[in-house]
Order: sequence, then C-alpha cells, then structure tokens
Amino acid sequence: MIYPPALEALMAALRCLPGVGQKTAQRMAFQLLQRERDGARQLARSLDQALDELGHCRDCRMFSQGDLCPICASDKRDDALLCVVESPADVAALESHTDYRGRYFVLLGRLSPLDGIGPEELGLARLAERMADAAVQEVIVATNPTVEGEATAHYIAELARAAGIAVTRIAHGVPVGGELEYVDGGTLAHALSGRRQVE
Amino acid sequence: MIYPPALEALMAALRCLPGVGQKTAQRMAFQLLQRERDGARQLARSLDQALDELGHCRDCRMFSQGDLCPICASDKRDDALLCVVESPADVAALESHTDYRGRYFVLLGRLSPLDGIGPEELGLARLAERMADAAVQEVIVATNPTVEGEATAHYIAELARAAGIAVTRIAHGVPVGGELEYVDGGTLAHALSGRRQVE
Repeated sequence: MIYPPALEALMAALRCLPGVGQKTAQRMAFQLLQRERDGARQLARSLDQALDELGHCRDCRMFSQGDLCPICASDKRDDALLCVVESPADVAALESHTDYRGRYFVLLGRLSPLDGIGPEELGLARLAERMADAAVQEVIVATNPTVEGEATAHYIAELARAAGIAVTRIAHGVPVGGELEYVDGGTLAHALSGRRQVE
Repeated sequence: MIYPPALEALMAALRCLPGVGQKTAQRMAFQLLQRERDGARQLARSLDQALDELGHCRDCRMFSQGDLCPICASDKRDDALLCVVESPADVAALESHTDYRGRYFVLLGRLSPLDGIGPEELGLARLAERMADAAVQEVIVATNPTVEGEATAHYIAELARAAGIAVTRIAHGVPVGGELEYVDGGTLAHALSGRRQVE
C-alpha cells in the first residue's frame, strides 16, 4: 500500500459512484485534495444534508424535503390527470419541456423480477390508492419504451382498467427533427403502426 | 426548480468532481440516494477524514498522514538516488512495477506559466535543499514526456548541475509489446535518436 490509509479510504468510497472505477477514483481523490478542498468539504456537507433531509413524497414518491413535494402540495394542478413515470428525472424533463399540469406518480424503477423488483418495490399499492381517488379520470403511462418499461406499463394499465379509469400511453415514433433513414427498425415499425389520421 | 433544495445542492456539489457535468451529477445523486445510502454516508465521512488528516510529506511532498511519508521515514531506501515525478500516482506506478529503492520528490504538477504554476508551486526550493544533501548522487527525472514535462525536466536538470549532481532522464521510446507501425512519429523519432549499443 503506497498511499496513506485516509487516501485509500477516500478512493474506495468514491467507487460507490456510478461509472467510477479505480483509476477515476484516484484522479477524483487527487483533484479534490490538491485543487478542490473547499468543494470537497462542501460535497461532504451536501451528502450529509441530503441523506438527513431528503425522503420521498407521500403521494407521488418524488424526492422531497417535506411530507409532500411542491407539486403534490400545490392546489393549481389538475387532479383529473395522473402521469406515471419511472424516475424523478422524468418528472423534471416533463416539467421543463411540456405544459403538463396534472399530477405525477414516480415508480423509482420498473418491474424487473430478475433484480427482485416487483409491484411492492414500485409502490403500486399506493398507486392503486391514488387511482381510487374519484378525481382521477385519466392515467398517462410514461414509462420508458424498453421491454421492462412496457411490462410495467401493461401492469399499470390493468390496475387502471380495474379501477375503471381511462389509460393512455405517451406516443412513440420518429423523434421530432430525426430522419427516417437513421431511425432504428423497432421505432420505425412503431411509428408506422401507430400512424394517425391527418386532421 | 423541480428538485428540493438539498438535492439541488448535492447535484451542484458533485460537479466539483473532474469530468462530472449536470447529467452525470444527477445520475450520481439519484444512485446515492436510492441505492447507496450507506456508501454516500461513508463517502462523506471519508472526505472529511481525508481533508482533516492528509497533508504532504515534508521531504517528498507525497500525500501523507504524518509529517513524513513511509518512504521518506524508511531507513531501508537508498539515499544516493532521488527520483523526481509529477504526481503521487507516478510514485505508486514506480513502486508497483519497478524495483527502484531510492527516494522520491513529487512536484504535484509541472511548470506551466500560463496556469500560474512556476518553480514555487512545484516546491523546487525544497528540491534544491534535498539536492544539497551530500548523500544524493543521482537525480532521476521522471516527468512526463509532454512539452511542459520536458520544460520541467530541463529546469530540474539545471538545478542538479548547479549542485554538481549527476542527472538522468528515464528512457523514452517504443513501449514494450508495442509495434513500430502503430507508434506515433514523435516517439519513433525519439526511439531512433536514443538508440543504444547492443551489448
């Protein structure tokens, strides 16, 4: 062992970050200790604060510092619409780029039996409770168009049908600005079979 | 702002890591909060411990938890040899892969006037003191073969000559296991001009 124990411990701890191996951890540790000591101290503080203060919203499972996240707490959102997404980042993307004003439900994952992720881990019981709320009229399923995302979408659609609520799925097809020639086959097949009447 | 303040603060703090932009910081923050809470707590502890306990060795400027690093404190090393490297990682590489048993001096950088890195930042005054030690007979310059590394090597060679000590530079040429065909031109020119008598 060439490095002092405190440095070895720091390099080992940095490897819990996604995509960080031994070399990257070493480079990060050197940069933090040589040039970013203030940043490193700030990072330690932010980690502690986030771990202590952040939980999940009771209603939508989004990261939240309080019992309810600002979107669930707001009375300006449309209770009739409930959009189901996989990740908090999806909420951020929809809020930034669309004019959606309904409610959300964050699964924090997708059905993946091999990884031990079933309906319980995704909080689907809580989602069923939300659907039982008389105000909800449409469930918009916005899981990712992967095999697991589709399986999850199917499961949620069944839940919604059982509750007698309309279910929609966000459209999949050729990305806006994309060219047919460069779109993968699955997407193109999806785009053709999902064609719509021109109005 | 979609995310709670503690999460935004964590994502901002993660961006002090080298090569981490907004998307990566978000992915890291989600992973830490959803799946690596113990790792995140450990990372905060390790950062604090490293910042509190790690300094630089008085003699060689290597990261050290004490006043002297284990290599400088050891009486088993050869005082006649002093190897000058740019980074603590270079010491680790030399210790792992060579049988070098002399002393080290770590510059923690290279001469780069445009970045405000001059002889003072590299501790060259301390290096000159080390050279003044009667025991040192050879200074091995192992800076990287970049423009700045070569300038640094030149400066150190001048220092050593002024102190009346032999100076050597580690060999540059075709890497062992490499093929001439794929070696860059600069390295090949170096390898040819630095050719040695076959013994």
